[in-house]
Amino acid sequence: MGDSGGRRLDEIAERVGGTVVGDGALEVRGVATLEAAGEHDLAFLTNPKYRAQAERTAAGAVLVDPKTELPGRNLLVSAHPYVALAEILALFHPEAPRRPAVSSDARVAPDAVLGAEVEIGPFAVVENGASVGDRATIGAGCYVGRGARVGEDTVLMPRVVLYAGTRVGARCIVHAGVVLGADGFGFAPTPSGHRKIPQVGRVVIEDDVEIGANSAVDRGTIGDTVVGAGSKIDDLVMVAHGVRLGRDCLLVAQSGIAGSTVVGDRFTIAGQSGVSGHVRIGDDCIVAAKSAVFEDLPDRSFVGGVPAQDHRAWRRVQAVQKRLPDLRNEIRRLGERIAALEARLDEEE
Amino acid sequence: MGDSGGRRLDEIAERVGGTVVGDGALEVRGVATLEAAGEHDLAFLTNPKYRAQAERTAAGAVLVDPKTELPGRNLLVSAHPYVALAEILALFHPEAPRRPAVSSDARVAPDAVLGAEVEIGPFAVVENGASVGDRATIGAGCYVGRGARVGEDTVLMPRVVLYAGTRVGARCIVHAGVVLGADGFGFAPTPSGHRKIPQVGRVVIEDDVEIGANSAVDRGTIGDTVVGAGSKIDDLVMVAHGVRLGRDCLLVAQSGIAGSTVVGDRFTIAGQSGVSGHVRIGDDCIVAAKSAVFEDLPDRSFVGGVPAQDHRAWRRVQAVQKRLPDLRNEIRRLGERIAALEARLDEEE
Amino acid sequence: MGDSGGRRLDEIAERVGGTVVGDGALEVRGVATLEAAGEHDLAFLTNPKYRAQAERTAAGAVLVDPKTELPGRNLLVSAHPYVALAEILALFHPEAPRRPAVSSDARVAPDAVLGAEVEIGPFAVVENGASVGDRATIGAGCYVGRGARVGEDTVLMPRVVLYAGTRVGARCIVHAGVVLGADGFGFAPTPSGHRKIPQVGRVVIEDDVEIGANSAVDRGTIGDTVVGAGSKIDDLVMVAHGVRLGRDCLLVAQSGIAGSTVVGDRFTIAGQSGVSGHVRIGDDCIVAAKSAVFEDLPDRSFVGGVPAQDHRAWRRVQAVQKRLPDLRNEIRRLGERIAALEARLDEEE
Repeated sequence: MGDSGGRRLDEIAERVGGTVVGDGALEVRGVATLEAAGEHDLAFLTNPKYRAQAERTAAGAVLVDPKTELPGRNLLVSAHPYVALAEILALFHPEAPRRPAVSSDARVAPDAVLGAEVEIGPFAVVENGASVGDRATIGAGCYVGRGARVGEDTVLMPRVVLYAGTRVGARCIVHAGVVLGADGFGFAPTPSGHRKIPQVGRVVIEDDVEIGANSAVDRGTIGDTVVGAGSKIDDLVMVAHGVRLGRDCLLVAQSGIAGSTVVGDRFTIAGQSGVSGHVRIGDDCIVAAKSAVFEDLPDRSFVGGVPAQDHRAWRRVQAVQKRLPDLRNEIRRLGERIAALEARLDEEE
Repeated sequence: MGDSGGRRLDEIAERVGGTVVGDGALEVRGVATLEAAGEHDLAFLTNPKYRAQAERTAAGAVLVDPKTELPGRNLLVSAHPYVALAEILALFHPEAPRRPAVSSDARVAPDAVLGAEVEIGPFAVVENGASVGDRATIGAGCYVGRGARVGEDTVLMPRVVLYAGTRVGARCIVHAGVVLGADGFGFAPTPSGHRKIPQVGRVVIEDDVEIGANSAVDRGTIGDTVVGAGSKIDDLVMVAHGVRLGRDCLLVAQSGIAGSTVVGDRFTIAGQSGVSGHVRIGDDCIVAAKSAVFEDLPDRSFVGGVPAQDHRAWRRVQAVQKRLPDLRNEIRRLGERIAALEARLDEEE
Repeated sequence: MGDSGGRRLDEIAERVGGTVVGDGALEVRGVATLEAAGEHDLAFLTNPKYRAQAERTAAGAVLVDPKTELPGRNLLVSAHPYVALAEILALFHPEAPRRPAVSSDARVAPDAVLGAEVEIGPFAVVENGASVGDRATIGAGCYVGRGARVGEDTVLMPRVVLYAGTRVGARCIVHAGVVLGADGFGFAPTPSGHRKIPQVGRVVIEDDVEIGANSAVDRGTIGDTVVGAGSKIDDLVMVAHGVRLGRDCLLVAQSGIAGSTVVGDRFTIAGQSGVSGHVRIGDDCIVAAKSAVFEDLPDRSFVGGVPAQDHRAWRRVQAVQKRLPDLRNEIRRLGERIAALEARLDEEE
C-alpha cells in the first residue's frame, strides 16, 4: 500500500529510534497488515492475539516491541511501537498537498477574517465576524457561523457546522458531519409544556483536538462547553451543554457526557458509556465500555458497570452475576438442608 | 456575558414575577455562572450541589427558589426559577434579527411554495412541491425534499435534510445535521438475502418540537412516524419507523425508540436508553438512563434497568448487585455452617 | 395511501404467489396500517400483538401468513408475508423516476469519471480521480472525495460524505448524513499527549448494502474496513477502523463494532449493542439489544447481556436478578435459622 518508493529497513529504524534484528538492507516499500503484507512490506505486531498471523505472515519485516520474539523474521524493534508506526505511516503516506485557495463557490462574508494560505472548499459558508486562522482548511459544504473562530492549521472536513460564536483552536481536526455549538437540551417545565431556556454560552475547542464523524458538542446554557487541549473524540459522541473536559481526554465511539459535568485531564471513556450530569470526574480516570457513571470520581478511578463501581469489584460482580441461577438453586438447597436439620432436631426433642 | 445594557434587579424581578431579597437597585448587566459571575452579573442556584460555589460567588445577585437561603447576598427569588432564567436570558440575549431573503445561492424549485418573510440560506435546496411557511428559516445547505412542508416560524439550522413528503409543524427548531424521513430499517428475509421493504409512510413533526444535532427520525413503512407537539429531542437520538410519540415528550441524548412503538404524552427517556419495537408506553412515563424497555408500560410508570423494572425496585437490585461477591461468600459460609450442623447431628445419633 | 389505480385482490395474490380467502374481486387501491385502512386498502398482520386491531380493522383485505385465521375477512395468504408486502408496496408506490443529469450547481473535477445516466444533485462535489457508476445518483450536497468510487445503480442521498479512496459497490443506498472513510480512532500515547497514527486504509462497501442516516464507517488504519455484500446498517451506527463485516449482516440502530473486529456472514446485532475490538464473530451470530460482546463468538451464537453470555442463560440471569433483594433477604433468614439450630444444639450438648 506504499505510495512512494522503497526505503531500507535500517534507515527506517534509525528514523524512529528503533533497532533491526535481521536484514537491515531489506527494501521496505510500504506498511501492510500481517495478513495482506508481501515481501517488501513492513507489518506490525503488538497485540499477542495476532501472534499466529505474525508467524505465517509474508511480510518482509515486522515492527514489534522489545518483548516480542519472532525467530527467523526481520524485525524492527521499538520501545514505542505505536509511536514508531505513526512515524512510519507518515513517511510512506505523506499528506496530500494543501490547495490554499478560497473556492469561488464558497460564500465568505465581507467582514470575515481569513488568515494566510487558508483553503475554503466549494459551498462552504463563512458568516459575518468569523475568522479562519493561517493555513486552516474549511472543507466543502462547511458552515462557520457568525463570530466563530477556527485556529491556525486546523482542518474542518466537509459538512462540519460551527454555530455562531464557536471557537476551535489550532491544529484541530474536525471530521465530517460534526456539529459544534448546537443548543443544549435545556427546558423549563411549565403548565403549558416545556419552555426553552435560551442557550447563550459557547463551545470552546482547545488546541490539538480531534473530533470524529457526526459527533456533537452543544453550547453551554450560560458558560462555555470546553474540550481541553489534546483531547480526542471518536464518532457519534455527545458532549452536552456546560461540560468541561480537561486535557488529553479520550472519548470513544458513541459515549456521552451529560450537562455541566466537569472532567479532569487524561480521562478515558470507552465505547457506549456515559457520565451523568453535574458530576465531577478527577484526573486520570477510566470508564470501561457500556458503563454509566452517576457519581463523582476521585483521581485515578477505574470504574465499570451500571451504575459504575470500582473496575475490579465490577469484574467480580460480573463473574457471580453470570451464575445467578446457580446461586438461587444453591440457596434453595440450603433451605432444604436447614429444613431437614430442623425436622431432625424436632424429632429428637 | 450580557449583550445589552444593565437593568435594575427589582425591574428584572418584576418582569419574571419574582421578589428581591437585598438591593433591588443593583444594576445587572448579564447572566453568568456562579464561578464566572462578577458584581454586575446575576448567577443561578437551584441544584444544592452548587451551594458551596454560591457561597463564594462574586455574583451581584443570585436567582434562587423560595427554599434556598443565602444570607448576605442579593437574591432574586422565584417560585419557578428555570422559567425565570429562560425569561431573563431572553432579555439579555435577544435573538439575532432574521434576514428574510432567499439567497441567490439557494435552489428553490419553481413550484415550491414560499411563505412571507422566509429566509433561505446559501446552498439550500427546496424541491418540487415543497412548501415553506411564513417567517420560516431554511439554513445554509439544507435539503427540503419533494412535497415536504415546513411550518411557519420554524427554523431549520444548517445542513438539515428533510426527505420527500416530510412534514414539520410550526415554531419547531431542527438542529444541524438532523435527518427526517430516511427509510426505516425494514427488510424481508429471503433465501438470497435481505429484500428491502419499501418505506412509503412519512415523518410528521408536530408544532413546537425541537430536535437536537445529528438526530434521525425515520419515515414509516406504511403509516407515519409522528413526533407529538411540544416534544423535545436531544442530540444523536433515533426514532424508528412508525413510532408515534405523544405531546411534550423529552428524549435525552443518544436514546432510541424502535419501530412501531406507541408512546403517550409527557414521556421522558433519559440518556442512552431505549425502547424496543411494537410496545405501548402510557402517559407520563419515565425511563432512567442507560435502560431498556422491552414491554408495555402503564401510565405513570417510572422504570430503569435492562430489562427495565420499577425504578425503586431497580435501585434496590443495584444495591444488592454491587455486593454480589459478598453474597456468594455468605452462601458458601452458610453451607459450611449447615455441614457442621449435619456432622454434629450425625455424631450424636 | 396508494399512489396509483386499484388492482383486484386476486391479481395481487397471483403476483406475489399468494392465495385469496374471500372476495378475490375486491378492488385494492393501496396499502395501509390496520388502524388507518379503509375498504379499498390492504392491511397487514403477522405480529400477533396486533390481532385485536386486525379484528376491528376497516381494511378491505388483510395480508397474513398461513397460520393466521381471521374469520369473515378477505385475506391474502402468503407463506412469506414480508416478501409479499415488499412486492405489493413496490407495486403501489413505484419509485420516483430518476432525473439523470449533472446539476450545473454541482462541482465535478475534470478528471472524475462519470458513467451513463448518472444524476448529480446541486452543490454536490466530486473530486479528482473519483468515479461514479452508470445510473448512480449523487444527492444534493454530497461530497465524493479524491479517488472514491460509487458503483452502478447506487444512490447517495443528500449530504453523504465519502472520504478520499472510499469504495461503494453497486445497488447500494446510503442515507443522508452518512460519513464513510473518516479517520479511525488511533493514537499512540506519548509523554506529550496522544500522537495521531495516520489512518491510511480505506472503506470498502460491497454491493447491495444499505446504510442508515448519520451512521459512520471509519477507514482502516492500514488495511481496509469492509462491509460485506447485502449487509444493512441502520441509523447512527458506528463501524470502526479495520472492522470486516461478512455478507448479509444486520446492524440495528445505535449499535457499534469496535476496531479490527472480524465478523462472519449473516450477523445480527440489535439496537444499542456493541462488539469490542479485536474479536472474531462467527457466522449466523445474533446479539440481543443493549448488550456488549467482549469475546470471540463461535458460529450460530445467540448472546445477550453485559458482558454477553448465551441468550437463554442470560434470560434466566435476568429473571433472578430482578429478585435480588428477595434473594438477599432469604439468605439472611437462612442465616437466622442456622443460628437458631446452632443455639439449640449448643444447649443440648
